Amino acid sequence: MFKAMCATQAKGPLKSIEFDPGRLRPNQVQIKVRYCGLCHSDLSMLNNDWGITQFPFVPGHEVVGTLEEVGGQVKHLKVGQTVGLGWFSQSCMTCRQCMTGHHNLCATAEQTIVGRHGGFADRVRCSAEWALPLPERLDVSKVGPMFCGGITVFNPIVQFGVLPTHRVGVVGIGGLGHMALQFLSKWGCDVIAFTSSDSKRDEAIKLGATSVVNSRNPDDMKKLAGSLDFLLVTANVDLDWNAYIDTIAPKGRLHFVGVVPNPVPVPVFNMILAQRSLSGSPLGSPATTAQMLEFAARHHIAPVTENYKMTQANDALEHLHAGKARYRIVLENDLG
Amino acid sequence: MFKAMCATQAKGPLKSIEFDPGRLRPNQVQIKVRYCGLCHSDLSMLNNDWGITQFPFVPGHEVVGTLEEVGGQVKHLKVGQTVGLGWFSQSCMTCRQCMTGHHNLCATAEQTIVGRHGGFADRVRCSAEWALPLPERLDVSKVGPMFCGGITVFNPIVQFGVLPTHRVGVVGIGGLGHMALQFLSKWGCDVIAFTSSDSKRDEAIKLGATSVVNSRNPDDMKKLAGSLDFLLVTANVDLDWNAYIDTIAPKGRLHFVGVVPNPVPVPVFNMILAQRSLSGSPLGSPATTAQMLEFAARHHIAPVTENYKMTQANDALEHLHAGKARYRIVLENDLG
Repeated sequence: MFKAMCATQAKGPLKSIEFDPGRLRPNQVQIKVRYCGLCHSDLSMLNNDWGITQFPFVPGHEVVGTLEEVGGQVKHLKVGQTVGLGWFSQSCMTCRQCMTGHHNLCATAEQTIVGRHGGFADRVRCSAEWALPLPERLDVSKVGPMFCGGITVFNPIVQFGVLPTHRVGVVGIGGLGHMALQFLSKWGCDVIAFTSSDSKRDEAIKLGATSVVNSRNPDDMKKLAGSLDFLLVTANVDLDWNAYIDTIAPKGRLHFVGVVPNPVPVPVFNMILAQRSLSGSPLGSPATTAQMLEFAARHHIAPVTENYKMTQANDALEHLHAGKARYRIVLENDLG
Repeated sequence: MFKAMCATQAKGPLKSIEFDPGRLRPNQVQIKVRYCGLCHSDLSMLNNDWGITQFPFVPGHEVVGTLEEVGGQVKHLKVGQTVGLGWFSQSCMTCRQCMTGHHNLCATAEQTIVGRHGGFADRVRCSAEWALPLPERLDVSKVGPMFCGGITVFNPIVQFGVLPTHRVGVVGIGGLGHMALQFLSKWGCDVIAFTSSDSKRDEAIKLGATSVVNSRNPDDMKKLAGSLDFLLVTANVDLDWNAYIDTIAPKGRLHFVGVVPNPVPVPVFNMILAQRSLSGSPLGSPATTAQMLEFAARHHIAPVTENYKMTQANDALEHLHAGKARYRIVLENDLG
C-alpha cells in the first residue's frame, strides 16, 4: 500500500490515505519520495480550475526520491539512484515527437497528476524515461521545483536558441521568473527583470538581473524599445502586450510560459516590420531536463524555497493560495 | 529630366510629368526602366491609406531595367547590366541590422515610393546595394513583381528554416500566394493551398499545390489539425485565426506577410501546448533577394502577369482596384 495526501472533492482538504497501486508495469520505476515541490498547478488541479481533475486526487509533480524498484524492461536505471519526476510521467515513445526527442510534445503523454496519483505520497511511479537521475552536486531538498517550474523556463532558452550575446527580459519575478533570472544570467545574457513590485528589485538583482524595469513606468518601457532579443513571460495575468511587443528587437521573440487568461491581441503590422515572433512552450523533454540539471549543478542554480512537512500540505497550500510563497514550496515526506 | 506618371493628390489620376532628379549621389545607380510591376501597395500609397504618402507621388517599386549610370563609389555594378529594384532603395549600411546582412530591417531604410519618386518613370535611382543583377535566364518582362511580392513570400522560407520535409500551407491564392505556391513546391515541400474560391482550385494545383482546402469547410480544416509545420498567410483580411492555429503542428509556425486589419487574438494556452509560434516578416535583404532570383531562374519560377503600357497606368490601377488582376500586373515603359 502507498500512503498519500488526497482530496476527495474540489478545493480539498487533503487527508492522509492509503491505496493499492497495483503491479509495477515493466516500463515503470517506483520512487520512494523524499521531497515534493508544491506548484501552482497543484492548486489549480485541486480546485479543478481546468475541469480535468479526477477525484480522489493526489497532487505533486515535483518529486525527488530514491529508486526503490525498476520494471523488467528498464535497463538504464538502478535501484538506489536518486531521481526526479515532473509534470509528465509517461510518453508513447513511438510517435514522431517522441522519436525526435520531443517527448514533452507527445500527444498522448501521461501527466503525473491527471487521472493518476501524484507525488504527495510516500511512493510514486512513472515510466522510466521520465525518471531523471540527479547530478550529485544538487541539493535534493531544493531541486524538486526544477522538474516543473525550472524546466518550464529553461526549455525555451534551448528550444529557441537564446545566445549569451542576447539581451533578454523576464516578465514576472515569482516561482518561474526567479529561476529564469538565474538560468539566463548564467547563460551569459544581459537580463532585464520586469516587475511592478519595487520590493522585488533588490532580489531580482541578486538572482542575476542586470537591471530591473518597473513595467508600470511608460518611460522605462520606451527606453527599451526594439532592444530585447527574447522576452520570457512567466506571469499569468493580462498585461499591456503592445507595450511589451514594442520592446522586442528585430528578429526577436515574445515568449509565453505563463497561461494568461485572455487571448493576446497581436498587431500583425508590428510583427511584420521587425520580423518579430510570438510563441509558447510547455515543459521540456527528458533530454532537455537532464541538460538543465547539469547546467544548474555546474552553476549552483537552485530555486529559493520554503519548507513544510508533507503532512502540513494543507498549510502549504493556504500559504501558496495567499500569494505569500517566496518563491517555491517544498514538502518533505513524513508519511512513510 | 526624368519622365514619370505622377499623382498630385490622393486617388490620382496619374499624369505624365517631367522632373529634375538632381545629381546622382556617389553611392547611387541610375536605372533606365524597362518594366515596372504594379503592386497593391502602389494603390494603397496612391490612396494615402497609410497616411505617409507625399504628393506629387510617383508609384512603382517593382522595377526592372538597365543600369545607365553608376556613382563614383559603386565598384560592383557596371553600366549596361540588367537589374531589379524593389520596395527598399537605400539602407544605412552601418547599423547592426545592415552589418549582419539584414538591410531590410534597417530602421532608417529608404523606401522607393515614400518621400521620393518610384519606378513608374523612364528612369529611377537607388543606392547600389538595392540594385540586384538579374540572372540571365529570367524573363525581364515578368520578373518585376518578384522584387516585392516574390521576395515577401520567399524571405520567410529562408528566415525561418522551412525544410523540404515540411508540410506547409498558403492562405490566400493571389498576387503573393500564387508565387508562394511555386517557391514552396520547388523547395520540395508538401504544399496545401487554402482558398475560399473554388475557381482557384485547379490553378493552385498547376502552380504547385499538393492539395487545395476550402477554408470555409470546417471538416476540411479539422482534417489538417496539428499537421502544418509552416502556414504562410498572404491574405489581408480577418479570418478565423483559431481554426488556422489548430492546423499548426508541434513546433510549427503561423506566419504573416499580409497585413490583416485587426489584431490577431492569440490563445496563449494553445501556443504553449504545442510550442507554436506566430510571426511576421517584411521583404527580404539584398542577399536573400539574390538567392530568390537564382532559385527562380533554376526552377523556372515566374509570376503570372497581365501587361499594360506605362502610359496606361490608370487603366491598370482600375483593373487592380476592381480585384481582377490574375495575378500581377506589369507595366512596360513607353514613356522614354
